[in-house]
Amino acid sequence: MRIVVPAGGIGGARFLRGLKEALGVTGDGDATEEHTITVIGNTGDDITLFGLRICPDLDTVMYTLGGGINEAQGWGRAEETFTVKEELAAYGMHPTWFGLGDRDTATHIVRNQMMAAGYPLSQVTEALCDRWRPGVRLLPMTDDPVETHVVVEDEQGRRAMHFQEWWIRHRAALPASDIIGIGADSATPAPGVLEAIREADAVLLPPSNPVVSIGSILGVSGIREALEDATVVGVSPIIGGAPVRGMADVCLSAIGVETSAQAVAQHYGPRLLDGWLVDEADAASTRVDGITTRSRPLYMDSPEATAAIAREALDLASELKGGDQ
Amino acid sequence: MRIVVPAGGIGGARFLRGLKEALGVTGDGDATEEHTITVIGNTGDDITLFGLRICPDLDTVMYTLGGGINEAQGWGRAEETFTVKEELAAYGMHPTWFGLGDRDTATHIVRNQMMAAGYPLSQVTEALCDRWRPGVRLLPMTDDPVETHVVVEDEQGRRAMHFQEWWIRHRAALPASDIIGIGADSATPAPGVLEAIREADAVLLPPSNPVVSIGSILGVSGIREALEDATVVGVSPIIGGAPVRGMADVCLSAIGVETSAQAVAQHYGPRLLDGWLVDEADAASTRVDGITTRSRPLYMDSPEATAAIAREALDLASELKGGDQ
Repeated sequence: MRIVVPAGGIGGARFLRGLKEALGVTGDGDATEEHTITVIGNTGDDITLFGLRICPDLDTVMYTLGGGINEAQGWGRAEETFTVKEELAAYGMHPTWFGLGDRDTATHIVRNQMMAAGYPLSQVTEALCDRWRPGVRLLPMTDDPVETHVVVEDEQGRRAMHFQEWWIRHRAALPASDIIGIGADSATPAPGVLEAIREADAVLLPPSNPVVSIGSILGVSGIREALEDATVVGVSPIIGGAPVRGMADVCLSAIGVETSAQAVAQHYGPRLLDGWLVDEADAASTRVDGITTRSRPLYMDSPEATAAIAREALDLASELKGGDQ
Repeated sequence: MRIVVPAGGIGGARFLRGLKEALGVTGDGDATEEHTITVIGNTGDDITLFGLRICPDLDTVMYTLGGGINEAQGWGRAEETFTVKEELAAYGMHPTWFGLGDRDTATHIVRNQMMAAGYPLSQVTEALCDRWRPGVRLLPMTDDPVETHVVVEDEQGRRAMHFQEWWIRHRAALPASDIIGIGADSATPAPGVLEAIREADAVLLPPSNPVVSIGSILGVSGIREALEDATVVGVSPIIGGAPVRGMADVCLSAIGVETSAQAVAQHYGPRLLDGWLVDEADAASTRVDGITTRSRPLYMDSPEATAAIAREALDLASELKGGDQ
């Protein structure tokens, strides 16, 4: 099967690990594999700090699938040290709130050097994956600059800030009234993205943040339209009215969507979604015309549990695709 | 006194530490000090690796005088780690022969970010020194790009390579037939360099490499001419026919100069040098018309010994300046 997965960071990466397990994909995702997985990675979180281009979601997917992730934390490198960060702080460099590890810094240095030499992010990502061999084809959603900014309003007034500043520095605690993908309108999908969607047997939306991860990818012109023509099954990131992890609820609130499996399905809508996998807790309360809903335990609390969720999503996609034909 | 010191890396930095001690300069070299030291740092060794602009000699002076140097080694940071370097190697990045430490990397990241924002190297160096407070005013010889290249000739034929590659990777073991400062002809002295020389009570040449450190600085148009009008006392980097440290002998050979205190004095010449401090071992064999030679033990084997050498150089400069008047 040819599977396409638009993915954010931690949730997306863990789902992908389960999907690889479910499909028995162990190798480098090359042409000899029976199943291929193409990941469309969110780049809206990307940020330039200290002159280094940092792509948190692409790196989280790459490190997670390549065996380099800090498992407990879900992002960043295993056995990480923070000497560079401490030294930058000693120089009085800002910001100090970004958790820039030494191992991670090397990734950004490689990326920077390649981008300065004129390589687009997609080729840089491919080169980085030469080392990590994540077993999937990892594409950025776009080679163009797109940055997610959050409109906040508090006693200091209304202003916009980079998503990372809101998310990490303020822990998403500043009231947000909108979330905007700056540059998304004029961005075009990275080479291979639309082709992969067109050729996909199934597109799976992992339980990534529907606003700043999946929403950011959908905001790149052409991607939503291509997905509407594909068989798309989503895995709800909301269980019993709360995000499985992360702070998806505040992101949903910012764009006026309720934090429920039902509301997220409606937000994606039946033109995009063909199937929707929800937790058993949400089975009774989730029903959207034009979307086939199925329920099962959705906590990705072990590799096995995650693989079972992925398998169910694949099965649902196969059924729905069969029904289309 | 207003002292100017054109300096390379390790030897220059250690001499400067002795000079500060000799003058009782302990603070930040600001206007309230009785004595001020302006260092004209060699930038010919500078190199861009991994997209980072690296200034080995400026950093060695800054770290040594600011208390951050690896004392045993003479270059690089104390308590250094090499995680970034290992990771870059894991990505297959070249070169692998450069000893890029994690703490050091932070310095280069700050420098890169400032240079990318349009700051000249002189302002970047000043900003870095805000942290290190070396007690001297540290100026790069030029804000323009100058790179020392070495012409080598072996079984692979005649070719030029960056000084750092020759020095570190090949440990200066490839036979060199010339050493060239690329860009030196069109480079202009950094802001403050010529003014400092003009206002100097004394210029001291530390026992830095006469070719790739002092020679590189003298190659920037206008600097040699300005120094010829100043009272200049040099400290011989050669004792008993051998370099005190480093591999100055192979650099001297490459430009056709014998490795002796006498030959180096002749190479600098009486228009540049007013006084020449040599080791007692070289007292009998060193005599150049127009250069006042004095001898004393020149091994900088302790801070006290180094301070005594600096004091003697200062005394000689004062005598010679007095004689001029």
